[in-house]
Amino acid sequence: MKLNENFLKLPGSYLFAEIDRRVSAYAAAHPDKKLIRLGIGDVTRPLAPAVVEAMHRAVDEMGKEETFRGYPPYRGYDFLVNAIAEQDYRARGVELTAEEIFVSDGAKSDCGNIGDIFGTDNVVAVCDPVYPVYVDTNAMAGRAGEYDPKTEQWGRLVYMPCVKENDFIPKVPKEKVDLIYLCFPNNPTGAAATREQLKAWVDYANANDAVILYDSAYEAFITQPEIPHTIYEIEGAKRCAIEFRSFSKTAGFTGVRCAYTVIPKELVRNGVSLNEMWYRRQSTKFNGVSYVVQRGAAAIYTPEGRRQVEETIAFYRSNAQVILSGLSRAGLEVCGGVNSPYVWARTPDGMGSWDFFDRLLTEANVVTTPGAGFGPSGEGYIRVTSFGGADATREAVERIVALLKR
Amino acid sequence: MKLNENFLKLPGSYLFAEIDRRVSAYAAAHPDKKLIRLGIGDVTRPLAPAVVEAMHRAVDEMGKEETFRGYPPYRGYDFLVNAIAEQDYRARGVELTAEEIFVSDGAKSDCGNIGDIFGTDNVVAVCDPVYPVYVDTNAMAGRAGEYDPKTEQWGRLVYMPCVKENDFIPKVPKEKVDLIYLCFPNNPTGAAATREQLKAWVDYANANDAVILYDSAYEAFITQPEIPHTIYEIEGAKRCAIEFRSFSKTAGFTGVRCAYTVIPKELVRNGVSLNEMWYRRQSTKFNGVSYVVQRGAAAIYTPEGRRQVEETIAFYRSNAQVILSGLSRAGLEVCGGVNSPYVWARTPDGMGSWDFFDRLLTEANVVTTPGAGFGPSGEGYIRVTSFGGADATREAVERIVALLKR
Repeated sequence: MKLNENFLKLPGSYLFAEIDRRVSAYAAAHPDKKLIRLGIGDVTRPLAPAVVEAMHRAVDEMGKEETFRGYPPYRGYDFLVNAIAEQDYRARGVELTAEEIFVSDGAKSDCGNIGDIFGTDNVVAVCDPVYPVYVDTNAMAGRAGEYDPKTEQWGRLVYMPCVKENDFIPKVPKEKVDLIYLCFPNNPTGAAATREQLKAWVDYANANDAVILYDSAYEAFITQPEIPHTIYEIEGAKRCAIEFRSFSKTAGFTGVRCAYTVIPKELVRNGVSLNEMWYRRQSTKFNGVSYVVQRGAAAIYTPEGRRQVEETIAFYRSNAQVILSGLSRAGLEVCGGVNSPYVWARTPDGMGSWDFFDRLLTEANVVTTPGAGFGPSGEGYIRVTSFGGADATREAVERIVALLKR
Repeated sequence: MKLNENFLKLPGSYLFAEIDRRVSAYAAAHPDKKLIRLGIGDVTRPLAPAVVEAMHRAVDEMGKEETFRGYPPYRGYDFLVNAIAEQDYRARGVELTAEEIFVSDGAKSDCGNIGDIFGTDNVVAVCDPVYPVYVDTNAMAGRAGEYDPKTEQWGRLVYMPCVKENDFIPKVPKEKVDLIYLCFPNNPTGAAATREQLKAWVDYANANDAVILYDSAYEAFITQPEIPHTIYEIEGAKRCAIEFRSFSKTAGFTGVRCAYTVIPKELVRNGVSLNEMWYRRQSTKFNGVSYVVQRGAAAIYTPEGRRQVEETIAFYRSNAQVILSGLSRAGLEVCGGVNSPYVWARTPDGMGSWDFFDRLLTEANVVTTPGAGFGPSGEGYIRVTSFGGADATREAVERIVALLKR
């Protein structure tokens, strides 16, 4: 009996599990300290009233024989899929059919599982720093090669540094790569790609027969009108890009679990439709999303739902402003936070990011995310999220300011 | 860019998608006909009142800041995991810790995704007939070799015929296999394994360093006291077996989506804990199950919840009796239905199972599942489920009786 040996190559534990471990250990040893958590990108605002109401109605339907629903459609209910096509895409000039949208339990699941449809010998390009799921799932599938603890990189992955010098937007690589993970607005740096920057990627992918895996989970936080909300706003993207979206950060669904993935019918390789491959994958290894959850998600597209969700996003945006200005005041170099819920802050005096994480945890009792956890180029940064409460965010920022002014 | 070529080897579409296609085509051409669906194993009874109430409470909690919950724990909430450990296991003399139970969105997802932790060069044994997910997911991962349309079998899979001659319980193979999928009470045949039959498998697995993937999704339908409800009732099973459970058929959760998988800490291969590997897989490619759904699942373990769920199961059991006796009356040879919601019926006059499926669809307007869809040894059988309404089930059986008496 052979295990998947690729798992054994993975260094340490998954980033957020490791943070969890450190925070739990500290909290257990100091039960009197009031921790403020601006680390993991988890939301804190309650569900919108329109969502709550829709979920109640759906629960009642499930409790009555006449309106009970069994297995959901593999791709999602029409009432949700059509709302997505209409409001998230048609409203931006992008036409999608219902068959091009796949509702799921989370963008993390989809970003990980999408690898199932690709060969294990593809060359994968990722940003550095990067959301660890892209790297770890490819390592598990055997696409990453061997891990080098010295460089903290995998031998077969192509790393695209996103650093101050390129405004945290990667350039297209000189070599030929096959699968390209892009995430804009970016997690963790908060950088957003312009139309021109995305166009270069779409052109590269189409010229090189590559596929772009575009994670657009933070799209709702875009404020600057020139920033595209979906990669399909770029000419040619339907022939080369898969887009991942999530209700986690838009509508506070981290604990409700709903997301979707778009695979256009035009996305064909060697005569094979990637849409059909994914449908086969989902219909074989997945059984759809809870009816109650899909009803909740659909409520976001009603006029009240939209208004309520926009209020929540405005709330988090205001936190981002507090963090941006506070950390600047504390003398830290900051970016992100404008089109993104994440602020990316340089550690003081060239401090290591896990060291700065530990210092903020133990001396300011604020939980952040160490940049190094996102890859070598994240070293020297921390990520701070705007998903906390307003008072808690203000207090956390004050504590950090006070600590750094000491 | 290379696709996962294994996908391209898959013959036709997933069984239930194909049934769906035929039924939709027939329904569209004959809008006046009243179809009765006893095909796909989908339930029809509404959620238990205790579940509905618990979900309403959870929705309300999610709508208030003080009680809102974000990302669920990767393994499931303690309130659910502890109830599972206590009532599904400790009550049967099986001790499990909370870390050995992983709550998920469905047993189908888990049965498919579990392959991630195993090497692609393992030899996989499956029953024939078999729930297609085991075969198709292994084919997708490259463990099945090549598909031979003539034999309708995959070159590298070891098929264990479950036929009348062995009472539909497979014998341990003579060759060495690494991964063994067992499902009892069985889908599709309805056969249930005794303690002695399971003991032979556990002993084989421990002697051969194999892992048993034990699908126990229909456990709640067991009526005979001598039949074990979990494989861990068998001495030695914790060292070789992973067990999949589901709330789909117990509590009518096909549209709610909740299940769990048990991986004992004792299950270690080459010094590596499979429990830890699965935790790593889930924490990297999955983000837990909706809080509202987990609260609904936990309500099944309350005294009212248990009583209500038992009523529902009794309802389906009574359908199974109607089907068993009706099809016998119609002259068909039947089995299953006693410890299982499925009745496995031989087609009349050696008719092919897709032909009999089509005949029942077009002449009796009853949807069943053709046995051949579950593998070569399913040829000559159909599966009939007891998950319909009581009146619909009676009417379907009457129609079949009338058709076969013509």
